[in-house]
Amino acid sequence: MPGQRADARRNYAHILAVAVQEVALHGADASLEQIARIAGVGSATVRRHFSTRRALLDAVFQERIEELGACARRLSSVADSRAALVEWLEALTAYAASARGMAAALALDEVGEEHVHACSAKLVDSVDPLLERAVRDGVVVAGVTTADLIALVTGIALATEHHADPLGQAERLLALAVAGISPLR
Amino acid sequence: MPGQRADARRNYAHILAVAVQEVALHGADASLEQIARIAGVGSATVRRHFSTRRALLDAVFQERIEELGACARRLSSVADSRAALVEWLEALTAYAASARGMAAALALDEVGEEHVHACSAKLVDSVDPLLERAVRDGVVVAGVTTADLIALVTGIALATEHHADPLGQAERLLALAVAGISPLR
Repeated sequence: MPGQRADARRNYAHILAVAVQEVALHGADASLEQIARIAGVGSATVRRHFSTRRALLDAVFQERIEELGACARRLSSVADSRAALVEWLEALTAYAASARGMAAALALDEVGEEHVHACSAKLVDSVDPLLERAVRDGVVVAGVTTADLIALVTGIALATEHHADPLGQAERLLALAVAGISPLR
Repeated sequence: MPGQRADARRNYAHILAVAVQEVALHGADASLEQIARIAGVGSATVRRHFSTRRALLDAVFQERIEELGACARRLSSVADSRAALVEWLEALTAYAASARGMAAALALDEVGEEHVHACSAKLVDSVDPLLERAVRDGVVVAGVTTADLIALVTGIALATEHHADPLGQAERLLALAVAGISPLR
């Protein structure tokens, strides 16, 4: 029945939203039982939507990539192209710093790796316009690619994951890389 | 006899120099047999100096840290404080990009972790004067710490280790972070 299907969709979206939060807080080891408890559903309901931890992490990963893409599209209408790009890099940093163990958990096999690759390609497509606009405006040097920026942020997240305040330190290092350790004036 | 001891020291230094090269090329999985072959000694001789792979990697790690410290001390007499700091960051990047798996191999237990920590502290001490001079000269913003710079380079090395040209891409990202993704003028 349509009503039931709509209920199931709402349930799915709600569980996924809770899962996104829990994975942001606890990384790939987030507890499925805890997600069920916070979502106010039984473990069986969680398992009906996500048959394995891997399936749940996969959905969370896709959801975050979608959000980062939507964020890039929203920012394309911000007049200041430098501010728009920097804000997106900050959003990516917050995601990368909260995604501890996700990439490793998803890259366990080749299917996972291809999947992560496809998602990254989608991400690059959504951010390219932001970077191109910043280059056109002369606020980013020509030749810098979206892949460079994603690699830099990924590196910052990896290098700060054992810090006492991972997100704080990642934001600090991003700000340093954006302004330049030693920009030539 | 003194002659024998001098021979053993030369042998040790020679094997270590070859090991530094091989670990730079092949990471922590460098072959002990290959090191013996290139050094022109038997495997037994390598094992007499380095009883385990771990002992060899440890000696290589210490040697590289010593070299980076000596490099920082040499650069302290270069007049251009920005050029001196950037050159040291490039040396650190080359080391980090070639040290694939080293940190992981050495951090297998707490003793390893403490040891790596002690070496890092030594590294920070040798580079602090370079950074302080650059800050005094106004070419690096105040508040940036040597630990920030080491974290940034470590992150760049981690994010580029699966790249087709890890060192080339790491150098590219370092140049980007030094000049700034989008420096405010």
